[in-house]
Amino acid sequence: MTRVAEVMPGYGYGDATLTASPVTLEELEQLKITVGLTGDDERYLRLAGEVLTGQTTPIVLHWRSQIIAHIPHLARHSRALDGSPLPAYLAASNLRFEQWILDTCLRPYDRTWLDYQHEIALRHTSAKKNQTDGAPSTPFVPLRDVLGFVAVMNDTIRPYLAAKGHAPAEVEGMHRAWCRAIQLQVALWAKAYGGGEW
Amino acid sequence: MTRVAEVMPGYGYGDATLTASPVTLEELEQLKITVGLTGDDERYLRLAGEVLTGQTTPIVLHWRSQIIAHIPHLARHSRALDGSPLPAYLAASNLRFEQWILDTCLRPYDRTWLDYQHEIALRHTSAKKNQTDGAPSTPFVPLRDVLGFVAVMNDTIRPYLAAKGHAPAEVEGMHRAWCRAIQLQVALWAKAYGGGEW
Repeated sequence: MTRVAEVMPGYGYGDATLTASPVTLEELEQLKITVGLTGDDERYLRLAGEVLTGQTTPIVLHWRSQIIAHIPHLARHSRALDGSPLPAYLAASNLRFEQWILDTCLRPYDRTWLDYQHEIALRHTSAKKNQTDGAPSTPFVPLRDVLGFVAVMNDTIRPYLAAKGHAPAEVEGMHRAWCRAIQLQVALWAKAYGGGEW
Repeated sequence: MTRVAEVMPGYGYGDATLTASPVTLEELEQLKITVGLTGDDERYLRLAGEVLTGQTTPIVLHWRSQIIAHIPHLARHSRALDGSPLPAYLAASNLRFEQWILDTCLRPYDRTWLDYQHEIALRHTSAKKNQTDGAPSTPFVPLRDVLGFVAVMNDTIRPYLAAKGHAPAEVEGMHRAWCRAIQLQVALWAKAYGGGEW
């Protein structure tokens, strides 16, 4: 598996200690159908993974420094409650954010992946936010902001998908697959926020 | 306001009897920022509204007949519990679905709009599903499917945005604005599903 760094504090993909996702594999298969994710998309995701490998640092910097840092109601989730920076927390979570990009593209969407999706989701809720890094930050990231920021990620990822000279139709295919994969993931994450009719 | 039909049973935009949205205008403004919705996008949404006017019937047929009808776990929400069709329910909700496309593009996102967003959301949950039409259908549409189907709507709307001969950059602008507006709306709808950390 392609890793963005040898050491990634708190990156727990495949850890046996993780809480199992309450989502069944059948629900996952249905959700793939809902978002329209096909075998073609899976191939395009692999291609996107190759294209994005080596670009995850500028992508996450783009999201964090050029966008989130300028939006106080989002930036606060990586900061202390008084607004002061938490550089170690930000650095560790940025590295995991980078790896998430590659995992989105290159991991098989199986039980292990599903369990780590649940872990990612829990780390945005009061069940687990801050715990991994011992960070004195906000208690949770509101679901609405997790869902909403998808629009920004989907929009801004496009030039990075085009950065290695693929034909427009291939870039389009990678982007379509990316958007479907992200919508699949946030739909999964919503489960951890606890509404009864997930 | 452009209407897709003179008579739209159950279309309650602006009705004084609606439950007020629990979302504040300040939260709405923040959410616009989260999804990246700008003044430019608002202009592109108006243009999209002009372009999509007259096309809402084929768009909704595309979504309902070509896609949802072939996905049993989605199609069942417009059917009786035994799977038999409910033509009157489907017809009425299709008409509201059509109008929702135009409302997405042409309505100002104000308190009235926010209250109707909440009404739309409630009509997907057990709080209000089926009530408007007295339909004996499924008790709710799972949040995951509402969130997931966004990927399909965003993808399939594009040719309709291009159907009236606008320049590629304008089509792109309309599509970007559409995607942001839809992500904003599903983030709002998630509130009605009752997770505590919305």
